[in-house]
Amino acid sequence: MDEQKMMDKLINIGIALTSEKRLDNLLEKIVEEARRFTSADAGSLYLKEEDHIHFVVSQNDTIRKRAGEKQEKDSFLPFTMPISNENIAGYVALSGKVINLEDVYNIPLEMPFRFNKSYDERNNYTTRSMLVVPMINNENEIVGVLQLINSMDENGKVIPFKPQYEKLIQSLASQAAAAVQMAQLREELKDSNLEMIERLSIAAEFRDKDTALHIKRMSKYSQIIADGLGFSKEDSEMILFTAPMHDIGKLGVPDSILLKPAKLTAEEFEEMKKHTTYGAKILRDSDHKIIRQAEKIALSHHEKWDGTGYPNGLSGENIPIEGRIVALADVFDALSVKRCYKDALPLDIVEKIIHNDTGTHFDPKVTKAFFENYDRILDVFEKYREED
Amino acid sequence: MDEQKMMDKLINIGIALTSEKRLDNLLEKIVEEARRFTSADAGSLYLKEEDHIHFVVSQNDTIRKRAGEKQEKDSFLPFTMPISNENIAGYVALSGKVINLEDVYNIPLEMPFRFNKSYDERNNYTTRSMLVVPMINNENEIVGVLQLINSMDENGKVIPFKPQYEKLIQSLASQAAAAVQMAQLREELKDSNLEMIERLSIAAEFRDKDTALHIKRMSKYSQIIADGLGFSKEDSEMILFTAPMHDIGKLGVPDSILLKPAKLTAEEFEEMKKHTTYGAKILRDSDHKIIRQAEKIALSHHEKWDGTGYPNGLSGENIPIEGRIVALADVFDALSVKRCYKDALPLDIVEKIIHNDTGTHFDPKVTKAFFENYDRILDVFEKYREED
Repeated sequence: MDEQKMMDKLINIGIALTSEKRLDNLLEKIVEEARRFTSADAGSLYLKEEDHIHFVVSQNDTIRKRAGEKQEKDSFLPFTMPISNENIAGYVALSGKVINLEDVYNIPLEMPFRFNKSYDERNNYTTRSMLVVPMINNENEIVGVLQLINSMDENGKVIPFKPQYEKLIQSLASQAAAAVQMAQLREELKDSNLEMIERLSIAAEFRDKDTALHIKRMSKYSQIIADGLGFSKEDSEMILFTAPMHDIGKLGVPDSILLKPAKLTAEEFEEMKKHTTYGAKILRDSDHKIIRQAEKIALSHHEKWDGTGYPNGLSGENIPIEGRIVALADVFDALSVKRCYKDALPLDIVEKIIHNDTGTHFDPKVTKAFFENYDRILDVFEKYREED
Repeated sequence: MDEQKMMDKLINIGIALTSEKRLDNLLEKIVEEARRFTSADAGSLYLKEEDHIHFVVSQNDTIRKRAGEKQEKDSFLPFTMPISNENIAGYVALSGKVINLEDVYNIPLEMPFRFNKSYDERNNYTTRSMLVVPMINNENEIVGVLQLINSMDENGKVIPFKPQYEKLIQSLASQAAAAVQMAQLREELKDSNLEMIERLSIAAEFRDKDTALHIKRMSKYSQIIADGLGFSKEDSEMILFTAPMHDIGKLGVPDSILLKPAKLTAEEFEEMKKHTTYGAKILRDSDHKIIRQAEKIALSHHEKWDGTGYPNGLSGENIPIEGRIVALADVFDALSVKRCYKDALPLDIVEKIIHNDTGTHFDPKVTKAFFENYDRILDVFEKYREED
């Protein structure tokens, strides 16, 4: 490949890589491009995790031609290696050095690392030349290793990796490291939002007489209904996380009302109703979609289809769909399960009540989705029963 | 520059860029490298924000030589441009197209954009050739624009930008876009942790008789003490955010105790003490440093230097330093301010109490840092006084 072509190619790779959003695809592409540049028969990418590295990409033309793509992946992916001098990738993960070897079976004795033959033995393959570079992110941490095996000449003979490729492959490995870091940040951000919900739930549990099992059931019912309404898998799952926030505003209701063993007076009930607006206040104005959905649910899960609910007397489709879903999930659970202050109703009675209240309390579409997936609802009901 | 050198350079840039952590430095470097590649006299980088783009980097050799570096920056940085066809960078931010012009004063009429002369007029400068590329991130969003001005030949004459540079500059612009995205994610993650603290605080405020002003003062006192103890600016600021969590566990204490207008019985006081462990439970086991610090503070702010505090009877340096800081900040505020159930003590009495309790209740080093910065403490005391 002449230099001009090589440069064009490198630039093109850079542009292509930044448009690949999925981390796994991106890492596969990086190994492919690194192999293409160096005419390498095989290549792997490992990520570092605590005291070991594990394969996330493994490509091997010889093995693929011999045994198919499935074998090519299956034979490597489950394996991990210690970060130590007992294997070359481990040494690179430890030292951050670039290693370029002509023949891994003849490593000069003064080298601090050893070649681990298990890859070759497991796959009836012969590794000869090898170029291994660290993936270093912009916090100067080694996050993984890019390893290229058996550079080939035009006649299919294994030759050493040319030293002038080292920098180029380091550059690709840096791009991989940046992509890994970006994906980790995204993951952390998602986790951080879930963590927020989790901690608010722990706070709420201190005060609410509702059990953790109630929360679990009604969230799962909500997810099933959302799924039945045609929500994407991701959106249905989001409801599983946000539904537990529906009563978070009860944190703001005094014990004398929240824990009263008798029926509330009209005045007390007005206070109790405020848990919807209190909840919305705790969750208000987030930049994060998941917290905004939780806010909607906290505010609207006591609205009714005919406009007789609270706090805003919304009706029909003016009630956010998440609120309509949680309304049904919450009531179904309240009716079907025994609580300290009331017995459970038999399921056939509960079903009648729900049908009866559909079009007044509940959105007919939501009720339809609920009963169309009633077997899944009952699975949850059975699986998360209260202990007596 | 021959092709091999050019490629080496490009690889080196890639490697250097990934090791630059600060976004502003990184973007400066990207413009520098882009200019060096294309022998451009000037270059700017704009970021997109809602309906306009604004300069974040502006380099201009001619202006720097004529008027100095300060002038080079000052003359551009405050300006923003609309995202519209009325200026070339705006057009690129809108369309995502690459624009390479030989002479901006002779733009063919069929082109959809116009050249905005204000830059030239403001700085007595003549723009001729221009290469403008969009910064596209890996979600395919245009996040900014990289603009190069006046490519120069060896004799210092302005020439057009060579078309073969376009891809290279696009590649640099993509790297800039990725860096911007990474910085934004980091910012979001930080915000998300602060948001968690904020929402827990809102929840706590529903129940706690302490005022928002108390929280504000004691957090600021804590920050001042941390600063006085030699904490870094960042670490002192973190305490400002975590100190408000010290009483979050009061969410778990019944109203009958929390709101009791009289002195608590011994048994009630045991219940009240649990707010420390409840708080730690709400905040436990986070991966985020800031939440882990909040957990420490919630758990340890009632420990005493001599080991007679609660919940764990820790003493001396076994009490986390954050807990020792907040202990003093919290008590100083409780004593110095009027609450509904007690009057404020005069400051000279408060000072005596603190000195008296140092070595028993308070860490002597913490007390020292507190009084060494007493003027800053009193500023906060005055500024955030309770209304009568």
